Amino acid sequence: MKDTDILKKNERIDQLYSQDIKIIQSPDVFSFSLDAVLLASFAELKNSPKTKVMDLCAGNGAVGLFASQKTKGSIDQLELQHRLADMGDRSIQLNQLGNRVKMYNLDLADTFQKFNKDSYDYVLCNPPYFRNQTTSKKNPNPYLAIARHEVKTTLNQVLKVSSGLLKMNGKLFLVHRPDRFLEILETLKRNRLAPKRIRLVYPRPHNEANMVLIEAIKDGRPDGIRFMDPLYEYEGEEYSQEVKGFLYGKK
Amino acid sequence: MKDTDILKKNERIDQLYSQDIKIIQSPDVFSFSLDAVLLASFAELKNSPKTKVMDLCAGNGAVGLFASQKTKGSIDQLELQHRLADMGDRSIQLNQLGNRVKMYNLDLADTFQKFNKDSYDYVLCNPPYFRNQTTSKKNPNPYLAIARHEVKTTLNQVLKVSSGLLKMNGKLFLVHRPDRFLEILETLKRNRLAPKRIRLVYPRPHNEANMVLIEAIKDGRPDGIRFMDPLYEYEGEEYSQEVKGFLYGKK
Repeated sequence: MKDTDILKKNERIDQLYSQDIKIIQSPDVFSFSLDAVLLASFAELKNSPKTKVMDLCAGNGAVGLFASQKTKGSIDQLELQHRLADMGDRSIQLNQLGNRVKMYNLDLADTFQKFNKDSYDYVLCNPPYFRNQTTSKKNPNPYLAIARHEVKTTLNQVLKVSSGLLKMNGKLFLVHRPDRFLEILETLKRNRLAPKRIRLVYPRPHNEANMVLIEAIKDGRPDGIRFMDPLYEYEGEEYSQEVKGFLYGKK
Repeated sequence: MKDTDILKKNERIDQLYSQDIKIIQSPDVFSFSLDAVLLASFAELKNSPKTKVMDLCAGNGAVGLFASQKTKGSIDQLELQHRLADMGDRSIQLNQLGNRVKMYNLDLADTFQKFNKDSYDYVLCNPPYFRNQTTSKKNPNPYLAIARHEVKTTLNQVLKVSSGLLKMNGKLFLVHRPDRFLEILETLKRNRLAPKRIRLVYPRPHNEANMVLIEAIKDGRPDGIRFMDPLYEYEGEEYSQEVKGFLYGKK
């Protein structure tokens, strides 16, 4: 059987060369973005097979698939949209990771009908970034509208579920937009999550940050926050050396 | 009269070449640090002669003296320690700025005995960075111990006084340490100050941030925070081009 036999209409297989992971994408439906790569790179995961990781708002599964190369643990993925979860499910098969990576097509609101509280070492999450304001211009692609705007969930629900899933001292790795940073900090706190490590992402030198990577610890002490070195996406017209390393592997 | 006639024992005159400002310093007592230069550079001030600026925790007056070159407005400086305020006072004379820069030797706690509430367009502040923990190792130089540790004031008092001094929509420019960032945000909020513009300062590329510059607006809306491009202190063994510009002037 050829890899491409697994594809449905208008789908293709993209590869993350740095980690030898294949991902089913569809330009009509959903493709992972740099955000997913940066989130997976930012996450520091224990390698033990007993490690339990949850990938929330998983989309087509990119974050969890990339993270599978950083731990021998098990990774559960949760995605609301059936079409995206189905792509993710087939990517798991394609990479022969079915023994430890699983995709669940589930609404965040129903998380604890399926999963136990206080049971995960890590939660990874690339949630919708934009508030669902009636005036806001949403993507005409309904899959992307739901993935990018808080149509079906909110920041508070995402962080409440993350906190509920985590063991004490478990870690959340989150990617979001810096203009919502204050709200993120307050919502983390409300949900017993203490931010510890922040990495700001800048499109290029001399630009403002357009993304923020956050590591937060459940029931951690609320002090000693660290701002790691800035991450640049581009140098000139090309991806930066660091991003090239994430995408294509270290030279 | 020579410039040096104004000096007391173990004092010298240093110059900020980029702005043609002379500052009386003393290695035994107190010298301004890069923090003061970066804070003054970060502050965006209206040029109008009606502009009113307060420099709190002024030390030997460096921040206010540098800022005097960015506005035609008046600058009041408040410093608790008599020895430092006296140096600052003489630096004002030395630069012939006495018509619009004034140093007050006053305890922060007594600010509103001397100054009106809601009367300043801007507050600049380079406060003590370190909590006054009994276990913390303080500088054996008592002037520096008070300038760097919260022996005589606290973050909350500094921000409460700053907020009290500012007009509605007036701006605070603050330099502090990133490890206290969460506490700073909460204390800003408690004192009606909304952070708007953040610039992180890194010793050099690939290091963690060791300083943070914050612009906050009194009664501003609590969203839309911006993280400006990172500021590096050094490139290799030398000051970065940007810092050289602040110190020696643009080439």
